[in-house]
Amino acid sequence: MESEFRKTHETFVPGSMTLPQEYYTSPEIFSKEKERIFRGWVCAGHVSRIPDAGSYFLLDQAPDNLIVLRDKEGGVRAFHNVCRHRGTRVEDAPEGMFSNSIQCSYHAWTYGLDGKLIGAPFMKDVDGFNPENFPLKAADVHQWNGFIFVNTGGGKTASFEQEYPGLTGRMSQWNMGALKSHKRIPYEVKSNWKYVFQNFNECYHCPTLHPALNKLADYTSGNNDLTEGSALGGFIEFTEDSRSMTMTGRTCAIPLGDLSPEDSRRGYYYSVLPNLLLNVHPDYVMFHLVSPQAPDRTKVISEWLFNPEANSKKDFRPEDAIEFWDITNIQDWNVCELGQKGVSSPAYEPGPYSPRESLLAAFDQHYLSIMNSTK
Amino acid sequence: MESEFRKTHETFVPGSMTLPQEYYTSPEIFSKEKERIFRGWVCAGHVSRIPDAGSYFLLDQAPDNLIVLRDKEGGVRAFHNVCRHRGTRVEDAPEGMFSNSIQCSYHAWTYGLDGKLIGAPFMKDVDGFNPENFPLKAADVHQWNGFIFVNTGGGKTASFEQEYPGLTGRMSQWNMGALKSHKRIPYEVKSNWKYVFQNFNECYHCPTLHPALNKLADYTSGNNDLTEGSALGGFIEFTEDSRSMTMTGRTCAIPLGDLSPEDSRRGYYYSVLPNLLLNVHPDYVMFHLVSPQAPDRTKVISEWLFNPEANSKKDFRPEDAIEFWDITNIQDWNVCELGQKGVSSPAYEPGPYSPRESLLAAFDQHYLSIMNSTK
Amino acid sequence: MESEFRKTHETFVPGSMTLPQEYYTSPEIFSKEKERIFRGWVCAGHVSRIPDAGSYFLLDQAPDNLIVLRDKEGGVRAFHNVCRHRGTRVEDAPEGMFSNSIQCSYHAWTYGLDGKLIGAPFMKDVDGFNPENFPLKAADVHQWNGFIFVNTGGGKTASFEQEYPGLTGRMSQWNMGALKSHKRIPYEVKSNWKYVFQNFNECYHCPTLHPALNKLADYTSGNNDLTEGSALGGFIEFTEDSRSMTMTGRTCAIPLGDLSPEDSRRGYYYSVLPNLLLNVHPDYVMFHLVSPQAPDRTKVISEWLFNPEANSKKDFRPEDAIEFWDITNIQDWNVCELGQKGVSSPAYEPGPYSPRESLLAAFDQHYLSIMNSTK
Repeated sequence: MESEFRKTHETFVPGSMTLPQEYYTSPEIFSKEKERIFRGWVCAGHVSRIPDAGSYFLLDQAPDNLIVLRDKEGGVRAFHNVCRHRGTRVEDAPEGMFSNSIQCSYHAWTYGLDGKLIGAPFMKDVDGFNPENFPLKAADVHQWNGFIFVNTGGGKTASFEQEYPGLTGRMSQWNMGALKSHKRIPYEVKSNWKYVFQNFNECYHCPTLHPALNKLADYTSGNNDLTEGSALGGFIEFTEDSRSMTMTGRTCAIPLGDLSPEDSRRGYYYSVLPNLLLNVHPDYVMFHLVSPQAPDRTKVISEWLFNPEANSKKDFRPEDAIEFWDITNIQDWNVCELGQKGVSSPAYEPGPYSPRESLLAAFDQHYLSIMNSTK
Repeated sequence: MESEFRKTHETFVPGSMTLPQEYYTSPEIFSKEKERIFRGWVCAGHVSRIPDAGSYFLLDQAPDNLIVLRDKEGGVRAFHNVCRHRGTRVEDAPEGMFSNSIQCSYHAWTYGLDGKLIGAPFMKDVDGFNPENFPLKAADVHQWNGFIFVNTGGGKTASFEQEYPGLTGRMSQWNMGALKSHKRIPYEVKSNWKYVFQNFNECYHCPTLHPALNKLADYTSGNNDLTEGSALGGFIEFTEDSRSMTMTGRTCAIPLGDLSPEDSRRGYYYSVLPNLLLNVHPDYVMFHLVSPQAPDRTKVISEWLFNPEANSKKDFRPEDAIEFWDITNIQDWNVCELGQKGVSSPAYEPGPYSPRESLLAAFDQHYLSIMNSTK
Repeated sequence: MESEFRKTHETFVPGSMTLPQEYYTSPEIFSKEKERIFRGWVCAGHVSRIPDAGSYFLLDQAPDNLIVLRDKEGGVRAFHNVCRHRGTRVEDAPEGMFSNSIQCSYHAWTYGLDGKLIGAPFMKDVDGFNPENFPLKAADVHQWNGFIFVNTGGGKTASFEQEYPGLTGRMSQWNMGALKSHKRIPYEVKSNWKYVFQNFNECYHCPTLHPALNKLADYTSGNNDLTEGSALGGFIEFTEDSRSMTMTGRTCAIPLGDLSPEDSRRGYYYSVLPNLLLNVHPDYVMFHLVSPQAPDRTKVISEWLFNPEANSKKDFRPEDAIEFWDITNIQDWNVCELGQKGVSSPAYEPGPYSPRESLLAAFDQHYLSIMNSTK
């Protein structure tokens, strides 16, 4: 631990301070974030939500809303959920199945699963109207270990690999693309979304806030292996008596992928700007999608993934993982709300990060570089 | 139908596109609308609400609130509901009866039914105070076929006839001034008020959205006879088996006025800027008053009027009309909310109107001329 | 009464008019008020809430939140409720007891009851970190007749005596510092906070709005003895049959302090900018703390104080006072809401104050002098 501490410490810039108040409260900065941070590559969710041709779900990621679907050729596609006629939201049910086409419920404009406009009553009577000019607007899609990322636009042209060099080639041994979703819980947090990200990126608070978690892993153990850019994080080591982050400390499902003995004793935690918080354990994955609603209000949807074969095993106890994080989440959201209350006070001024909060300083620095870019 | 289609088509400007996003979402444009569109002539409701001397109702039409009353001489008057002392809302009950005067509940300042200040405790002790300078502020009143219009102000000096040349002399044969109100239903729509107006002005959506309505009338039948300015609309023809817009397709009350055989087989639909949507059938009238609350929120109050003698007839079945429109309204408001969601997306861009949406292009054009006027 | 009227009249500037609309509706003016009016000296409450060493309560006075506590030496202290680390609200429970220290629930940073930082895990590893630079931020405290005032900051350097010269030495004969709190009722008023202050400062409305109160005291009796600056008010005289402001008109508890025969027959009413409205009767005190939430929304917390020995007496009937003011409060808040509705109309324009509203003109004048100061 001594040596680990030095390692983490090395990445820490002493004197780093928390962000000024306006970053947590200003409507103008919030608007700028929606353009600069929340448009471009965002995580839509896990592929297990769309197993079959025609199955879809909606990504409600302010300011955008997209239809993410599996097409007839088995590919994943994403379209802005906006009819090209009068702008109506084409599909409002959060998930479901399309047969051969997507029809707007207003005037029956109809699109193929490839987004092409294939029906538009009376429009043939309009001189010069060409349906090829009015497909659903597509978003680029990239899959990373079973997670679907879509580029919502806003002029962001970087490739996935350019945006997230640290993710490329990482974590394949967990075989996360094969997992199945078992549970999804939505939360509403009365806090700025960055407080949620910052809270995720340190375990300095674990002894005080998460007594149960703190018994399973020494918060000073482990190391950070992604320390700059849009993806940040590292791992923590379970204590001798613990095998996973669960209520019992035991694993609750058959193992994921093909893990080394070391990875079988670790939890990996990555924040991926702008909206993914990823928790990877030997026996399950839990991830949050973070959706800012206002400077002081954030939706978080937490989802649990397991080995697809786990369900048929006698000793499958998913509640052991679900209850653990539901309790931990609520502890975290509560303190994020206290944080929002505090930083909104005129008495707040930036405070000093501790050496255990080096990732927060890295997060702030990367965030500010995007917000202040003159490009 | 072939020929009708050409007629409607003639009024359509090919290439007309829907309004840009900001007109549905911008608080600044919304504020400007309250001044430019919603002050001036607005519809207050139907005369049957104030049958007797002293009876009144409140018109809650943002940004204004007015007392509309019948005075002792039988005339209709309207006053801004603001005490001239400290600005208190003088009367808060939405409808009722004044005896001889209107008294503010705060400091007992008292006004006659003609608005004159007739009591103000202690004010005689103020040098130079002249009660004649402090009447309730009056608004001009105009009655059109039983509908009370008031000029809420904002420097709008056009007469009713100048504002609505298309309405002058129109529709007298329905004798709507004699009707009685039977039902009023308030709705709250999470949509911009213009989406509500635009939705009203086309039946292109009827086959998809209103299957029951679509059986009663062919949406390509009829014609538009008011195609520019503040009042827009026309008629639709009932199918051979239908006699009115009701659940049963039969009339549900004794006929209105003195109608020609043609008018007895038609529904007439007019939108009257800024707040009246009028539905006239052979056996009843249904009208909406539209009150914008926010860029993305609109109150609509729907009211049903019948022949005053209908109530005494055995075969009076008002529910047949009320249920029909309540169902249809909810279908409309739902799709207006989907529209608001869609046009709020950064992916929205103006789309092409179909030939069946010529009135929407006319509405947009007139609306923009008011908003962009340099007067 | 004749002579009294002249006295009050003398302080009245004829021709004084109510404030323009924007002072009740503008978000910009509201923001400016939070800085200019609501930072500086504010009333936190009564000392009886913190009888023992370590006992505390939170003052939630937008934009500030402070911990008000009794320290080990028996003194009263106030600290901004903001951790110096990441800005977290340190304590969220509205009242309670600290043992020896105040610990933030997030990362266990710990402060003494004197505000000094006495624990901060890992921070010793940060070069140059000196805990003496990171105490909880203190606010100056002044006690006036048992009421705790704190200076929340914002660069306001005037002493309590400079801010409230009229309060110095006033009202000591009621011995209010010895009273005990018996009841606290929170209200939410959909009105601007100034309408609440203005309503408090006149009894011109009493005959119309408060028939019960009006039987206990002639609203034209008494006199105003503080007529300019931040503290305004005076007294009213009970009628011959009445002894206090209660449902029965009788006193409901043993007397306060050592009152002259005259003071035993009077109610004293003072508004103390920015947030205290004080009602002092021979047998009890009721005060409001006023906390603006938005231009059109205000929280009011009303609290009743009695002689500490009252509780042991057989004829202690606190409900007689509590019910009286709860009824009166609700009448007042209702009319403040009508006021807010009215002044928000475009038809509102400033109206003339009556001679019975001289304190409102004084309030407006002082308020405007602060808002328009070029300092």
